[in-house]
Amino acid sequence: MITSTSNPQVKDLQLLLKKAKERNARDVFLVEGMKMYLEAPRDRIRKVYIAESLYRERGKELDRGQETEVLSDRVFAVVSGTKTPQGILCVMSQYHYTLADMLKKPRPFLLLLEDLQDPGNVGTIMRTAEGAGADGILLSRGCVDLYNPKTIRSTMGSVYRMPFLYVDALDHLLPILRERKIRTYAAHLQGKNEYDQEDYRCGCAFLIGNEGNGLSDGLSREADTLIRIPMKGKLESLNAAVAASILMYEVCRQRRQAGL
Amino acid sequence: MITSTSNPQVKDLQLLLKKAKERNARDVFLVEGMKMYLEAPRDRIRKVYIAESLYRERGKELDRGQETEVLSDRVFAVVSGTKTPQGILCVMSQYHYTLADMLKKPRPFLLLLEDLQDPGNVGTIMRTAEGAGADGILLSRGCVDLYNPKTIRSTMGSVYRMPFLYVDALDHLLPILRERKIRTYAAHLQGKNEYDQEDYRCGCAFLIGNEGNGLSDGLSREADTLIRIPMKGKLESLNAAVAASILMYEVCRQRRQAGL
Repeated sequence: MITSTSNPQVKDLQLLLKKAKERNARDVFLVEGMKMYLEAPRDRIRKVYIAESLYRERGKELDRGQETEVLSDRVFAVVSGTKTPQGILCVMSQYHYTLADMLKKPRPFLLLLEDLQDPGNVGTIMRTAEGAGADGILLSRGCVDLYNPKTIRSTMGSVYRMPFLYVDALDHLLPILRERKIRTYAAHLQGKNEYDQEDYRCGCAFLIGNEGNGLSDGLSREADTLIRIPMKGKLESLNAAVAASILMYEVCRQRRQAGL
Repeated sequence: MITSTSNPQVKDLQLLLKKAKERNARDVFLVEGMKMYLEAPRDRIRKVYIAESLYRERGKELDRGQETEVLSDRVFAVVSGTKTPQGILCVMSQYHYTLADMLKKPRPFLLLLEDLQDPGNVGTIMRTAEGAGADGILLSRGCVDLYNPKTIRSTMGSVYRMPFLYVDALDHLLPILRERKIRTYAAHLQGKNEYDQEDYRCGCAFLIGNEGNGLSDGLSREADTLIRIPMKGKLESLNAAVAASILMYEVCRQRRQAGL
């Protein structure tokens, strides 16, 4: 059992919790909490860290034969990214999807996120994307790191199941999507068409812009169609995750009604 | 200019930032940032606090004749609820809406929130509610304080425009709504009807449950109709603000298509 916060593994976990660079260099990410542990694909778990009290109580039941290290509760609190740690944390292997993984199905349904900054928004979009039946999420390099512990937490497990990929330039993707007959829609305040007037039963991809600035002009110009989510009152915009969710569930609704 | 953090007004602002009890006792709340200041209804502003550097740069332009106090930048940082303060903060009078305020229009469209704990969720729901054209939000006493600075921030100004009301028991409301021919819908995993199979062109109210536990059984039983948002993949639930947003924009879509 590790009882000292100066143990090298503890230092390591703290580094992996905070630094995207370190996570990427070692090709790992951290997940925390019981739900994230129980849903974790076994072949991706590199090591499990468990707090002493949880180990005593449920250690046997939770053992799935992975390499496990027990930490004193005090040390566990130090490596935990949450205020009320659940006592279990795993080091996982990162995912490496390709665009091809997302284009396997007959009517690909994709999200393209430009420079989203809020970890909660990106995680929530991934969670909703799974629910709505999307095939993948493409993120600009300017987006927050998907392996950020806050993002991971707000995916509620979807990170294990939803393909995603960071790309250097989203605008380079659009011609590739067009070739595949995937129509790109940009959620934009100046969109002429209301989002629910379009037909999403074919392949479709939605461009979602940064929280503060919206979608860049360059990317908006490249999109096939600018769409608008109507807003009453004096509102200037919707939250990025909310806007993405409304669009995704409209796709889901149309496809469901068409029996797709 | 206030240059000391031990100034009684500074102590006071810190208290109002942190303590709901204190805010309620004095019938005030705090708003922060330029957007929140510019959109603030003048008759609700009790006092404006402005950081020295902003005052020097834009003090005249921002002056609307309210009682104003200048704080040194260092002191402003202490009373600010954000990491990168914009340098302007107002003490505002709280709102006191009644249920009658929300039932004025011919087809009332309401949200009923049960024990929502996340300030960002409640603020985001209020923001989306304005965009979707809802008439009011009713919150159980177990919900987070709407005047919590994080909630206020995530309303993005909707707090100035969207009627809301805390109630002791949401279930006591349902018979009142029924009398007014407002149908209540509970978003529930066991709902038999998909949310988009219902007709929301008449008065309607949506019950949204707590983030971790969903809607309580008691309240679910009282609702007129249990509805379900279909989910693909292995997802157990959607984020509460996302679920509420999908439902609200379905109402909005149906009413728009019906020309209401």
